[in-house]
Amino acid sequence: MAQVKLVNYQEASPEVRAVFDDIMATRKTDYVNNIWRALAVHPPLLKRFWRQMKEVMVKPSRLDPLTKELLYLAVSVTNNCEYCINSHSFAARKHGMDDAMLAEFNEIVALANAGNRLTMGLQVEIDERFKPDQPSVLWSLKGTSKRKPTKGRPKKR
Amino acid sequence: MAQVKLVNYQEASPEVRAVFDDIMATRKTDYVNNIWRALAVHPPLLKRFWRQMKEVMVKPSRLDPLTKELLYLAVSVTNNCEYCINSHSFAARKHGMDDAMLAEFNEIVALANAGNRLTMGLQVEIDERFKPDQPSVLWSLKGTSKRKPTKGRPKKR
Amino acid sequence: MAQVKLVNYQEASPEVRAVFDDIMATRKTDYVNNIWRALAVHPPLLKRFWRQMKEVMVKPSRLDPLTKELLYLAVSVTNNCEYCINSHSFAARKHGMDDAMLAEFNEIVALANAGNRLTMGLQVEIDERFKPDQPSVLWSLKGTSKRKPTKGRPKKR
Amino acid sequence: MAQVKLVNYQEASPEVRAVFDDIMATRKTDYVNNIWRALAVHPPLLKRFWRQMKEVMVKPSRLDPLTKELLYLAVSVTNNCEYCINSHSFAARKHGMDDAMLAEFNEIVALANAGNRLTMGLQVEIDERFKPDQPSVLWSLKGTSKRKPTKGRPKKR
Amino acid sequence: MAQVKLVNYQEASPEVRAVFDDIMATRKTDYVNNIWRALAVHPPLLKRFWRQMKEVMVKPSRLDPLTKELLYLAVSVTNNCEYCINSHSFAARKHGMDDAMLAEFNEIVALANAGNRLTMGLQVEIDERFKPDQPSVLWSLKGTSKRKPTKGRPKKR
Amino acid sequence: MAQVKLVNYQEASPEVRAVFDDIMATRKTDYVNNIWRALAVHPPLLKRFWRQMKEVMVKPSRLDPLTKELLYLAVSVTNNCEYCINSHSFAARKHGMDDAMLAEFNEIVALANAGNRLTMGLQVEIDERFKPDQPSVLWSLKGTSKRKPTKGRPKKR
Repeated sequence: MAQVKLVNYQEASPEVRAVFDDIMATRKTDYVNNIWRALAVHPPLLKRFWRQMKEVMVKPSRLDPLTKELLYLAVSVTNNCEYCINSHSFAARKHGMDDAMLAEFNEIVALANAGNRLTMGLQVEIDERFKPDQPSVLWSLKGTSKRKPTKGRPKKR
Repeated sequence: MAQVKLVNYQEASPEVRAVFDDIMATRKTDYVNNIWRALAVHPPLLKRFWRQMKEVMVKPSRLDPLTKELLYLAVSVTNNCEYCINSHSFAARKHGMDDAMLAEFNEIVALANAGNRLTMGLQVEIDERFKPDQPSVLWSLKGTSKRKPTKGRPKKR
Repeated sequence: MAQVKLVNYQEASPEVRAVFDDIMATRKTDYVNNIWRALAVHPPLLKRFWRQMKEVMVKPSRLDPLTKELLYLAVSVTNNCEYCINSHSFAARKHGMDDAMLAEFNEIVALANAGNRLTMGLQVEIDERFKPDQPSVLWSLKGTSKRKPTKGRPKKR
Repeated sequence: MAQVKLVNYQEASPEVRAVFDDIMATRKTDYVNNIWRALAVHPPLLKRFWRQMKEVMVKPSRLDPLTKELLYLAVSVTNNCEYCINSHSFAARKHGMDDAMLAEFNEIVALANAGNRLTMGLQVEIDERFKPDQPSVLWSLKGTSKRKPTKGRPKKR
Repeated sequence: MAQVKLVNYQEASPEVRAVFDDIMATRKTDYVNNIWRALAVHPPLLKRFWRQMKEVMVKPSRLDPLTKELLYLAVSVTNNCEYCINSHSFAARKHGMDDAMLAEFNEIVALANAGNRLTMGLQVEIDERFKPDQPSVLWSLKGTSKRKPTKGRPKKR
Repeated sequence: MAQVKLVNYQEASPEVRAVFDDIMATRKTDYVNNIWRALAVHPPLLKRFWRQMKEVMVKPSRLDPLTKELLYLAVSVTNNCEYCINSHSFAARKHGMDDAMLAEFNEIVALANAGNRLTMGLQVEIDERFKPDQPSVLWSLKGTSKRKPTKGRPKKR
């Protein structure tokens, strides 16, 4: 039972309508799903979350759209967010996921959740070779300092 | 501090050595990382977890190796398993992940964790269109029953 | 579907009725909500959980009642406890939360869940300046020991 | 790095000493471990948490001490609480857990975490036969009401 | 061990320096803490996360700064994010939190985590009175539809 | 709403039927519950998960069947997996759990979730005495190395 009234397009303010329009245009649909209608009770939140979703999930990047949806879904399954599992499974199917891939995906998510606990339960220490050997100068103050940043051979962490 | 003594190759039983050998052969390395040496305190567990890992993560399937590693990593970050984050970031880098992709990946994981809570906090109900309309006969008893399985028009859930 | 029968006031033992009475008197209501009726199947549990809830959430303290409810709710949203989200949103509204505040609250909870994962995923190390420099004597044995507790300049951790 | 100064026995107030004494007497040891020394910065919290721990984990009940420790540990592994994993593995070993049992235990915890995600990811619906058929009167108001509680055939949920 | 090289002010691009400058100006400090230096490996991520943090946590709103920090901290404790617990405890202390308030805060977070599990474990159903009775028109399509939106007495969910 | 069609015995492939038959024979029932019918959309997953469940939960081991069910349930409650809570409470009741034991069990799970957060929130450091002092040779390469494994006095970690 939603904790807030879902906002309808017809009753929405121009500010909210603009976001709804952008959602529908971006997704090439005339449907705005419930999460956006709920967020619309507080337009600044609606605008911020849509902006992020668009920049992170929609804008072309190094990861392809199906991979992005599967990553979002992996988190949602681990957190048991029912709405998110339903909406992002729907999205992943649009990007080509079928039943067999869904099953494979879920087995990886399950295995990772299992492996995480075996590692935690046994308190296994990180192998030296896994540790990134990032050179790093442990100092980030702005230039007013006289201390010169380490050069040539930056301090190893 | 590991809760059990890590088993060394030299002191391992033939049963454990066989798994260690298979790990090294499968991964084309002469190194066995700590989680496997910890699991070796109980050989049946070592064998089962390695078998699963090999079948799910190594065997070719619909999802490519980098995507699998990223999915494993998405779960590990959500659960905050330090060992797993280190070992699977290492593995993902071997499969081509660089700093920019790691950053993109983490932003998706962060966004999904955020989106999950917005949806939970507002208790948004699932849109009808997201619900899979799977025909299903709600009966799974073995054939001793006289009741015929629904045919033609299976009951919609 | 509750795993136990919810206990009714009419059928409750005197021990359980006493707790129900205290709940109603403390909250100035004649309604006992479902969680208490479920806990009543095991009176010692009912008594203990109500005692804690009263001591921690009801008794006046440094944090005001609305802040306490919002903190409880932040945990419940992060854990996705539907009952708790519904009951503590209800309580927070009684203490003055409206839709806009609920939206702000959920954005903070979402942002924290996102920020947590960015930090975990990148495995960022704690800045020295964040570490509390608590003087501490790493020894808590009772007085039978002859070793004198460190004085004057307690050992730094 | 603890967020508060750990309280020492020597510097503790009589109120705190009384709890420390009870912890040591109950556990037949002269050592008070760090969590209690941290909680001691706020004596009401120290008293409440120790009282619960004693009532729930120490007092004889239907579940034996080792089972209780393993249940506490299963939660701690799932939540990845390092301190708790270390302290309750230590306690479980005192109650007879050895390496093989620890391995078995962790495999169950890992399997449950995996099974949870398979079930969540596939959004499997609860079988009718698993639902407890608890008769319940959905009304808990105190006796001032004239409405008679349902009798004989209580309303099924 | 951070998965990426922490970026220093001196070596930062103008784009990154602009964010670092804004962080320092907003917080009236000449220090940029590690999470921002890590995010700087991918400037678009750095800019987005700082923008959100500033809009949600810094900009004046209905919730006061200490309450916001405590909410962020409640999530971080529940998720066991060590970096976040350290950095936001530090921030909360700046806004007036002392040891006693920290203890109270943690007891509420602990109680909520306990209450969440009692409710989940017993699978308690939501009381009717907690359910928001939000009028809602279950239709959000844009105006191309001929169907008139429900008016006057919107359909109750 | 299940994300996949639940497979019926009548329509199942011989491969799937063999697993269903084994489930029914092992459990001495003629009922196959929903999770297995969902997993059957991808027979390799069905076979793997059933094999694990049988090896870990059914095969006699050091932990008795009720303890195993309670451990599985403790994880499921902590993760809030409704299906799992319902099915494993059902299983635990078959192994003798009654309402009072269920209440005790849930109080332990709740207490552990609370204690985990008190410990995390205060960032308490692990007591030296809890740390296992496992002798360990930090080297696991296969025998090609000339370096002899440490003997007699293995390096302490």
